[in-house]
Amino acid sequence: MHSTVISSAWIHHQADKFFFMLSLVLYKIINMNIKYEDLKKLFYDKLVKYGASAELAEESATLFADNTLDGVYSHGINRFPRVISYIKDGYIDLDAKPELVESFGAIERWDGKMGMGNTNAKFLMNRAMELAREHGIGAVAVKNTNHWMRGGSYGWQAADNGMIAICWTNTNAIMPPWGGKTPKIGNNPFVIAIPRENGEHVVVDTAMSQFAYGKLQTLRLQGKELPVDGGYDENGNITRDPGKIEKTRRILPMGFWKGSSLAIALDLVAALASGGNSTKEIAAKPAEIAVSQVFIAIDNERMNAKEFSEQLIDETLAFVESSEPIDGPVRYPGKGSLDYRRRQSENGIEVSDEIYQTILAF
Amino acid sequence: MHSTVISSAWIHHQADKFFFMLSLVLYKIINMNIKYEDLKKLFYDKLVKYGASAELAEESATLFADNTLDGVYSHGINRFPRVISYIKDGYIDLDAKPELVESFGAIERWDGKMGMGNTNAKFLMNRAMELAREHGIGAVAVKNTNHWMRGGSYGWQAADNGMIAICWTNTNAIMPPWGGKTPKIGNNPFVIAIPRENGEHVVVDTAMSQFAYGKLQTLRLQGKELPVDGGYDENGNITRDPGKIEKTRRILPMGFWKGSSLAIALDLVAALASGGNSTKEIAAKPAEIAVSQVFIAIDNERMNAKEFSEQLIDETLAFVESSEPIDGPVRYPGKGSLDYRRRQSENGIEVSDEIYQTILAF
Repeated sequence: MHSTVISSAWIHHQADKFFFMLSLVLYKIINMNIKYEDLKKLFYDKLVKYGASAELAEESATLFADNTLDGVYSHGINRFPRVISYIKDGYIDLDAKPELVESFGAIERWDGKMGMGNTNAKFLMNRAMELAREHGIGAVAVKNTNHWMRGGSYGWQAADNGMIAICWTNTNAIMPPWGGKTPKIGNNPFVIAIPRENGEHVVVDTAMSQFAYGKLQTLRLQGKELPVDGGYDENGNITRDPGKIEKTRRILPMGFWKGSSLAIALDLVAALASGGNSTKEIAAKPAEIAVSQVFIAIDNERMNAKEFSEQLIDETLAFVESSEPIDGPVRYPGKGSLDYRRRQSENGIEVSDEIYQTILAF
Repeated sequence: MHSTVISSAWIHHQADKFFFMLSLVLYKIINMNIKYEDLKKLFYDKLVKYGASAELAEESATLFADNTLDGVYSHGINRFPRVISYIKDGYIDLDAKPELVESFGAIERWDGKMGMGNTNAKFLMNRAMELAREHGIGAVAVKNTNHWMRGGSYGWQAADNGMIAICWTNTNAIMPPWGGKTPKIGNNPFVIAIPRENGEHVVVDTAMSQFAYGKLQTLRLQGKELPVDGGYDENGNITRDPGKIEKTRRILPMGFWKGSSLAIALDLVAALASGGNSTKEIAAKPAEIAVSQVFIAIDNERMNAKEFSEQLIDETLAFVESSEPIDGPVRYPGKGSLDYRRRQSENGIEVSDEIYQTILAF
């Protein structure tokens, strides 16, 4: 069965391995460390350069820097160049502020006026929290806003203020519905946050696709397979090969029919509550703009004594973490972000030199 | 490699095949058709026999019959025997009615008083809708209630009244968290409903596990594999063999880490908002009782003109369904239940004669 003949396939394989190892070495070399304040200043300066007020630039830059600090590069530094290009193209209006369209009591409808997505979202989650302080539960639905970057930001924001939060956004049509081949639904990120006194909040931030396109690209460049099935290859077979899925653009919904159904429902509720666009209308735009979002806050501080809340969360998480581990600790949602935040706060934030230089050159 | 020797293993295999084919034949023979009204009367009579008031029996029997009509046997007729046994064991108190614990304005906290789960849930979704009529959005969190059977029931109920609804329940610890082997989280069914004028509502009703144990059992008895990965075998490998998963009790969360995270967060919010039990405490009970639930309603009729709402939903669903199909029509969530409802309303409801006889004998 064995052969010692050195075939051309073998040589090819060795060359592949060499270039792969080289890419890993280069990856380490071309990465750099940057302090949080320096990264934030970079974002701030560029936003001001392209027309943002000092106030908007400060808030938006903080959100971009926080996302990067927490390891969510895809919606931190790595996304920043696209946001600048959206500003240049006129898709994002830096002068716009959200406007109240109609109040129904504990739920309000706002117009995002095509403003900056992350500062709009922060403002509107804040408004949902004000409504929750008054009514126990409060909600804001917004139309014509822009990409909020990392949905988890607004979960952490609410939890930092003692609030339970549920929020979601619709998106462009980037995923086929279950049973279909062509992309007709969004991945519609969905967030649930639960506050803890020590700031170690429980935060779920999950798109309705099993993997983001950014993740497929990262793993392909590293020569890795997906850990679980992620989409279809060109023959219609389900695969873990990220490159094949990138070609077909047929990513799988999380839980197959389940994530597909949830994405459809979340899109409809966001569009109906806000009176804004559903994924169908966003798909007809020249870019992923004018999306609809919902922010719901529940005033946990008013509803529960501190001791009850803390004990319930601590004991429930300890119970979850007591599951016999497969090959490492069982972690609760949000723990990964916290670990990144601690590590990078101490050691500096590791960013790609290439992206850093791209932003510097803007 | 081949052998024509008839081994005892081969004989055993043939016998297995024979009994399996026989079970399929018997399955068809022993199934029966029953009219909706007759099925409902069966449930009604038994509930009254075991102590329910005429009013409670009527409501609860209707919910059990509706679930069976819609094809959700697992929480219709197939579950009824267990509910009767819970009543006999004193786990369900047929005399209890939900009591208001505290109002915070648009959100209220109720105590289910260990009453009947499905009638409690119907009452509380109704209360959430009343709050939504007043405040635009309304919510009820309930502690110490019992299994609501099919979560979708309360989505259909809200949508029949022109409301958007989001509701969920926590459950016993029946699923390992992602990264763990032993069951420490619930499958915590989650429902989103969107109303349509013609009654063809969009209703997602999804547990956080990829498959229910009932589904594993059904497919095992039919000698079928799961359509996608559903859990782990005894060697810790992910498998589609339903029997192997039933043995290890290691079912997979939907979307792997995603469904696991969502289940943890939904459990915490239900327990905090209601002041009730989390999955940890339910797991310590002698049965799956005293669960916590959240019902959120949004008054779509007040927020949107009928024409806007209808057009937005119709166009969005048409867009979803326009995805090039893989091997059959792309369906929106809720369509499957509607199809069952129509077919069984016309032709009668197909039920297992064995379960029917079991209930008759109570």
